[in-house]
Amino acid sequence: MKATGIVVEYNPFHNGHQLHLNKARELTKSDVVIAVMSGSFVQRGEPAIIPKWERTKMALAAGVDMVIELPVSFATQHATIFAEESIRLLDALHIDTLFFGSEHGVSEDFSTAAKTVVENEAAFNETIQLALGDKKTSYARAYTDAFTHLFGKELLDVTKPNNILGFHYALAIQKQNPSIALQTMPREHSGYHDAEASHDYIASATAIRKLLLAGNLEEASRYLPDSSIEVLNNYRGPFLSFEDYWPLLKFRLIQASSDELEGIRGVSEGIQNRMQLAAKKAHSFSDFIEIMKTKRYSNARLQRTALQILLNAQNTPPAEPYIRVLGMSKTGQKYLSLHKKNISLPIVTTVSKAEPSLLKEDLRATDIYTLINGLEDYQAGDFHTPPILTL
Amino acid sequence: MKATGIVVEYNPFHNGHQLHLNKARELTKSDVVIAVMSGSFVQRGEPAIIPKWERTKMALAAGVDMVIELPVSFATQHATIFAEESIRLLDALHIDTLFFGSEHGVSEDFSTAAKTVVENEAAFNETIQLALGDKKTSYARAYTDAFTHLFGKELLDVTKPNNILGFHYALAIQKQNPSIALQTMPREHSGYHDAEASHDYIASATAIRKLLLAGNLEEASRYLPDSSIEVLNNYRGPFLSFEDYWPLLKFRLIQASSDELEGIRGVSEGIQNRMQLAAKKAHSFSDFIEIMKTKRYSNARLQRTALQILLNAQNTPPAEPYIRVLGMSKTGQKYLSLHKKNISLPIVTTVSKAEPSLLKEDLRATDIYTLINGLEDYQAGDFHTPPILTL
Repeated sequence: MKATGIVVEYNPFHNGHQLHLNKARELTKSDVVIAVMSGSFVQRGEPAIIPKWERTKMALAAGVDMVIELPVSFATQHATIFAEESIRLLDALHIDTLFFGSEHGVSEDFSTAAKTVVENEAAFNETIQLALGDKKTSYARAYTDAFTHLFGKELLDVTKPNNILGFHYALAIQKQNPSIALQTMPREHSGYHDAEASHDYIASATAIRKLLLAGNLEEASRYLPDSSIEVLNNYRGPFLSFEDYWPLLKFRLIQASSDELEGIRGVSEGIQNRMQLAAKKAHSFSDFIEIMKTKRYSNARLQRTALQILLNAQNTPPAEPYIRVLGMSKTGQKYLSLHKKNISLPIVTTVSKAEPSLLKEDLRATDIYTLINGLEDYQAGDFHTPPILTL
Repeated sequence: MKATGIVVEYNPFHNGHQLHLNKARELTKSDVVIAVMSGSFVQRGEPAIIPKWERTKMALAAGVDMVIELPVSFATQHATIFAEESIRLLDALHIDTLFFGSEHGVSEDFSTAAKTVVENEAAFNETIQLALGDKKTSYARAYTDAFTHLFGKELLDVTKPNNILGFHYALAIQKQNPSIALQTMPREHSGYHDAEASHDYIASATAIRKLLLAGNLEEASRYLPDSSIEVLNNYRGPFLSFEDYWPLLKFRLIQASSDELEGIRGVSEGIQNRMQLAAKKAHSFSDFIEIMKTKRYSNARLQRTALQILLNAQNTPPAEPYIRVLGMSKTGQKYLSLHKKNISLPIVTTVSKAEPSLLKEDLRATDIYTLINGLEDYQAGDFHTPPILTL
């Protein structure tokens, strides 16, 4: 069985994702599509707008064959770790091709860019460190600047958000298993960062979340496939944003000592002290981010650091990777039983049977995610929800 | 000027307190009455029902001359520490007499009991430790049992709540400065622990809080002097109980590691692990306490430990004692300026001018106290509220 891997958040699953998914199957001529998906919290350092189980239902209903959860300690990190660990899971599941959308749209250039960087890694890293030395430049900025400086914009414009993510996938594949094929499709429609919906039926997940959070389900539905609309219609919980967790984050920032916060993943350069002062002044999470904003710290980095504080994620090595199965189609089930014996990572389908240390951070993250009123039905969901299987 | 000290919580100030205050002045023939009062959190391990500033206004309006805040690291501890540190502040302020209410009502017997215990301290402590050895007996129970066993119930019945507190005052005076006179008056009316109001105009603070939390201000007013009613009528914030802080406590119990909680003041014998499990099951704070209850742990001890976790109070020596002036009458002001030069503890009237390490725990406690909606006006009150002075 030929397998294609995709890296997703489906926050929520929309028409653009459907297009991407259909193309992944069609262009790669695969029998099975495996999605690695963030769980309760996503890469921008935010809670997912709906629980991972709802997003799994959406994915399966739209045609994904297997949904694997990217552990929270990888899912909420910067692009390098996010990509490396996603590829690690997909490689363990023996995918033939990685499929992704990008502004650039030419598959070979991603492989070339990755090879070039690996061959010139020392010079590349040195250029990044040099740029960071001024204490004003953000890591993301230093990274893209170094890339452009060394390899030029013609090869790949890594200032574009999907190009940089695709490049990190390519880099991870180059390092972990270059036999995985890379295939990209151009993203023609609404960009990742567009907050407003601008096409007839395609809008960014950001724009759709904005509509859902404003209670405008009808308008949001224009940009969602029927399968997603059905899941939303059956969902009884709230739509979530970081604002819902702001009272908890504020409490923790006021309650903790600076030393305790210094031990949190992603905290450096004394940022915890500024955060503690900002927490006292801020009246909302967006207010907090506004107060904290500088050239050095992008919104995403600030959100991710704030999230690690919310989750009390200690700056210790994260647990070993593992394959947490959230859901499978019949084809996905067949694929898993075919390959089960030669998958090198632990497979978790029943949480209570898993090695506790593996899932510790993920269980805690879901426990914190479900502290918001209206999510009671999903409480302890990690222990009691079996993988969603379609027949 | 002759000075009498009292130890209070005024949570809120009611007719029973007025009676006690009038008797304190009358029976001791004092010129000035100095109250040491808990701040944002009280000895039962709970938030005060209204902010300390409101309770200070009540105290001054009722005739107290000086209100001193008992630092939170002492105010939320068991009776021994609570009494020792209250006496330390009152002694530093050179009181002549300590006045308190008790079921027993005979002043001399408290002094005798304290002297007897000091003289037989080794045997007393040994008896307590022996009782604790079974791992089932609470400390309070072991203490009263040891007292009764060694010295008899005839001298003083320390199973009565106000007798045991008075005994701890007597003991602290015996150890710190036996020249302070002790004077008690019998408590004839509603007991400290009575949850229901049972007299025409006297009810326990517990019963009055219950009425206020139920929104029954009119019924509560029967048990309050006009001066307290006026303060309540002008108060714009909410009435608070631990239930208001339950979402924050639950979050912290879920978020923290067992090791982190082991470092909290009052946490011992692995109680943090049971608390973390109970937090996941409990739907409210009272539910949580109900789940946690055993013979070994009284409700008060459980609440106090839960409160230390909420406040993130580390099990390190608390800061040095200091005199935090919350309010003064004209007489109180005169008394303070007379004695200012020979008060051995730091006097804090303006927070921003005080040694920061002294107030750290108290400022954090007030910041956490004011996290509840409706208390915005009192936010950062510690920094911006000067002592309340009546003219």
